[in-house]
Amino acid sequence: MKTNPGRFFEDYTLGEVIQHAVPRTLAEGERALYHALYPARHALYSSDDFAGACGLEGSPLDDLIAFHTVFGKTVPDISLNAVANLGYGDGRWLAPVYPGDTLRSESQVIGLKQNSNGKSGVVYVRTRGINQRGEAVLEYVRWVMVRKNRDTAAPETVIPDLPKIVTPDRLVVPEGLDFSDYDFTLAGEPHRWGDYAIGEQIDHIDGVTVEEAEHMLATRLWQNTAKVHFDATNREDGRRLIYGGHVISLARALSFNGLANAQMIVALNAGAHANPCFAGDTVRAWSEVLDKAETSAPGVGAIRLRLVAVKHGAAPFALRGEDGKYDPSVLLDLDYWALIPT
Amino acid sequence: MKTNPGRFFEDYTLGEVIQHAVPRTLAEGERALYHALYPARHALYSSDDFAGACGLEGSPLDDLIAFHTVFGKTVPDISLNAVANLGYGDGRWLAPVYPGDTLRSESQVIGLKQNSNGKSGVVYVRTRGINQRGEAVLEYVRWVMVRKNRDTAAPETVIPDLPKIVTPDRLVVPEGLDFSDYDFTLAGEPHRWGDYAIGEQIDHIDGVTVEEAEHMLATRLWQNTAKVHFDATNREDGRRLIYGGHVISLARALSFNGLANAQMIVALNAGAHANPCFAGDTVRAWSEVLDKAETSAPGVGAIRLRLVAVKHGAAPFALRGEDGKYDPSVLLDLDYWALIPT
Amino acid sequence: MKTNPGRFFEDYTLGEVIQHAVPRTLAEGERALYHALYPARHALYSSDDFAGACGLEGSPLDDLIAFHTVFGKTVPDISLNAVANLGYGDGRWLAPVYPGDTLRSESQVIGLKQNSNGKSGVVYVRTRGINQRGEAVLEYVRWVMVRKNRDTAAPETVIPDLPKIVTPDRLVVPEGLDFSDYDFTLAGEPHRWGDYAIGEQIDHIDGVTVEEAEHMLATRLWQNTAKVHFDATNREDGRRLIYGGHVISLARALSFNGLANAQMIVALNAGAHANPCFAGDTVRAWSEVLDKAETSAPGVGAIRLRLVAVKHGAAPFALRGEDGKYDPSVLLDLDYWALIPT
Repeated sequence: MKTNPGRFFEDYTLGEVIQHAVPRTLAEGERALYHALYPARHALYSSDDFAGACGLEGSPLDDLIAFHTVFGKTVPDISLNAVANLGYGDGRWLAPVYPGDTLRSESQVIGLKQNSNGKSGVVYVRTRGINQRGEAVLEYVRWVMVRKNRDTAAPETVIPDLPKIVTPDRLVVPEGLDFSDYDFTLAGEPHRWGDYAIGEQIDHIDGVTVEEAEHMLATRLWQNTAKVHFDATNREDGRRLIYGGHVISLARALSFNGLANAQMIVALNAGAHANPCFAGDTVRAWSEVLDKAETSAPGVGAIRLRLVAVKHGAAPFALRGEDGKYDPSVLLDLDYWALIPT
Repeated sequence: MKTNPGRFFEDYTLGEVIQHAVPRTLAEGERALYHALYPARHALYSSDDFAGACGLEGSPLDDLIAFHTVFGKTVPDISLNAVANLGYGDGRWLAPVYPGDTLRSESQVIGLKQNSNGKSGVVYVRTRGINQRGEAVLEYVRWVMVRKNRDTAAPETVIPDLPKIVTPDRLVVPEGLDFSDYDFTLAGEPHRWGDYAIGEQIDHIDGVTVEEAEHMLATRLWQNTAKVHFDATNREDGRRLIYGGHVISLARALSFNGLANAQMIVALNAGAHANPCFAGDTVRAWSEVLDKAETSAPGVGAIRLRLVAVKHGAAPFALRGEDGKYDPSVLLDLDYWALIPT
Repeated sequence: MKTNPGRFFEDYTLGEVIQHAVPRTLAEGERALYHALYPARHALYSSDDFAGACGLEGSPLDDLIAFHTVFGKTVPDISLNAVANLGYGDGRWLAPVYPGDTLRSESQVIGLKQNSNGKSGVVYVRTRGINQRGEAVLEYVRWVMVRKNRDTAAPETVIPDLPKIVTPDRLVVPEGLDFSDYDFTLAGEPHRWGDYAIGEQIDHIDGVTVEEAEHMLATRLWQNTAKVHFDATNREDGRRLIYGGHVISLARALSFNGLANAQMIVALNAGAHANPCFAGDTVRAWSEVLDKAETSAPGVGAIRLRLVAVKHGAAPFALRGEDGKYDPSVLLDLDYWALIPT
């Protein structure tokens, strides 16, 4: 067999490090496409001059471009035979990615748990994105349920001890970042760190109706090879399951309206794709301020946000039902830290 | 409220200058996307070498990339609550925009007229696009009908005295532009300034059928946030209203076939979006030569053109009915000046 | 008439050289769009660092970007009135194309044969793509059936004597290319030149369902102006005929899964668009190893491949029926040479 059958649950060994294939040089083309695919408007990722005035060498590529690129490379090795993408955690952005940088990915298997039915199991990996200088730009943990292919003995169950959230002391503020002279007019909103209260909820109002062509362009751009996103013959109704990361980027871009100054994503505390998204869905978003913290960088505060993507028609601030399960209208529940001027 | 409710008619004051948010660095990615979104073929915007042979430092970004970018930034402040985009006038391109340039926009309120029903009014703004060196690259006047939100007294009516057209003496030819050694073969057509007669009409023949994904990609690329372009739940039929600028770019690109040498747009005399455009429409275009003028640059003439976009099925050179109203098949009526080799 | 009516059969003269219009500077934007439009993952075209480690100055633009760009320029002069694109042959890539390069095209008429009905004829052209330094980067022969417009005498029939395949001694290996230290892990598969057997067939497994927006974006990007690809009013069913080159790129990208190390396309021996492709079709691909050859470059072998694109539902390795005609499920039958590490 010359083609890649993907790995099955029994093919993972605790502690092994998998080097993922196809390094990728990212440049201005990926930035332009990101702006075409998502209604992204955060000024730091839109203008070299704005970013320069904030102490950076230029406008970095969107943090989620880095995430999707690093994630996409893991798909052929981690989730080709996945039944479900169960969760994310302990994610941190460690350095900005600039046009011209080349990223590759590697993952270490940090946990394994066979399901009691013996037909599948959960694989935990810590994935790192690494640039052309060998520097880690991003790391996160992800766990997926993967099918078994052969009737092998169950491995010893190891569930990694993950922090529930990334504590503020572990947030990495990019070198040189300085919001002392931050231009709120150019950024689009006057609201600063002190204007947000813990517990505050923001309805981002706007919505985007998704087309098949758009999510396939996006998902290919990240070299994500999961068949379900591209092949209409996988489902009776001919619809393609939209890559969860597409929904993350849509929701994050929509959150500009109310959180225009939550510029940089620096940590991913947790994330769940609550329900599948399909073409024709109109995606909306709301956020909740979960926490706030100071940083040592001048004028830079941190804000912990829950970002929820919902389908049109969802109740205001829909999240979970009385049974504790996600409301059927909820697509995404993401918990992250962003940097915001104080 | 953290989100932007947009401005209502009573929120504008005569003479005030509004700085629009989110500066944008444009680069080769936006150029490539422009070519993917529109059948654009004008050689000056396609080839660094062709542009260099015409005295420029390289191939500028399409004049309409500059226009859409500058326009898009104004939407959150000017037209979020607009009932109608009534017209454009007195527009001039003042300097080419090159990959790597960063644009921002500002608008001055130059006219106000409350409607007699007291529920809306017309706002006139002069918008300027400004690059990272503080140079104006573009300016134009636009007037929109905006809803009132509160029952305030009507402001004094001021209607700006706009020139019906930009007179040739006010056209700005980019520094260094020289068409003396213009290569008509590489440009695609032999027709020069002297070959076009005032009153001549050209049917550009080709047509493009528009898809939802395409106009949404385009409109997001210009960071235009108007909900009607993206959100299928805004209309009962689920269609999204196509950004008028998308039709401008489609028609301009189609006009290559017959006007391949009308290279640079230097003025926008007037413009009207006569009827809405929706996905599924097949857009065609025709032009009429309205005027011709000389310039002081070597080999460079100016040609004033009416560019009309129509839906498939329109009568030849359809424009207005006997009642003086636009024919239902007409999407766009644009009056502009372009530079063309003599 | 200011617009281009295209050439008819009687407008071609044996031996004449046609300079095609609109040179094009290609850059990182075209690379990003290529990755968004096709599931392309070959490492040499994805990463500057990977390409640098293979002795190149950086990651070239995909060989098919060069092909489509050169081809697109010929459409207004060669195939605007074409009834059918009959075949390709004797194609060679002569130098890599890098971001910033500007390509133009020229074609020489090397054969003419009027059909016996007197209403059309076959035109053979040898097309060359030329960069800004005047170097040929690509050449290939193509023959198309073109309508006659006037009742002229038939020209003398000349059918060029084309090689059935490009023999290995004529393959051009890019200067400096060295696969001695090729990183199979980063490239994505362990299979090298010696692992492929002549006659071996590979089912590439994955499929992509095509949307109208995608193929129109692609075809415009290459400045291909053939109406049938863009104008839904050309057919009663409103479908647009998908540019054959779109299918080539889809199939080539799908072939990564099993041929990840067949990095560079260096020759096009033959090609036929067996059946038309339309939006909604799910495209799959299979390959057959037709031949193998050595090259003088370190660690670099050549592999001759048949690449077949089929519609979902095709029989395994579908190609031709018992009558020798292409199976209705076959979209493309392409015969090419690629460079692969030994």
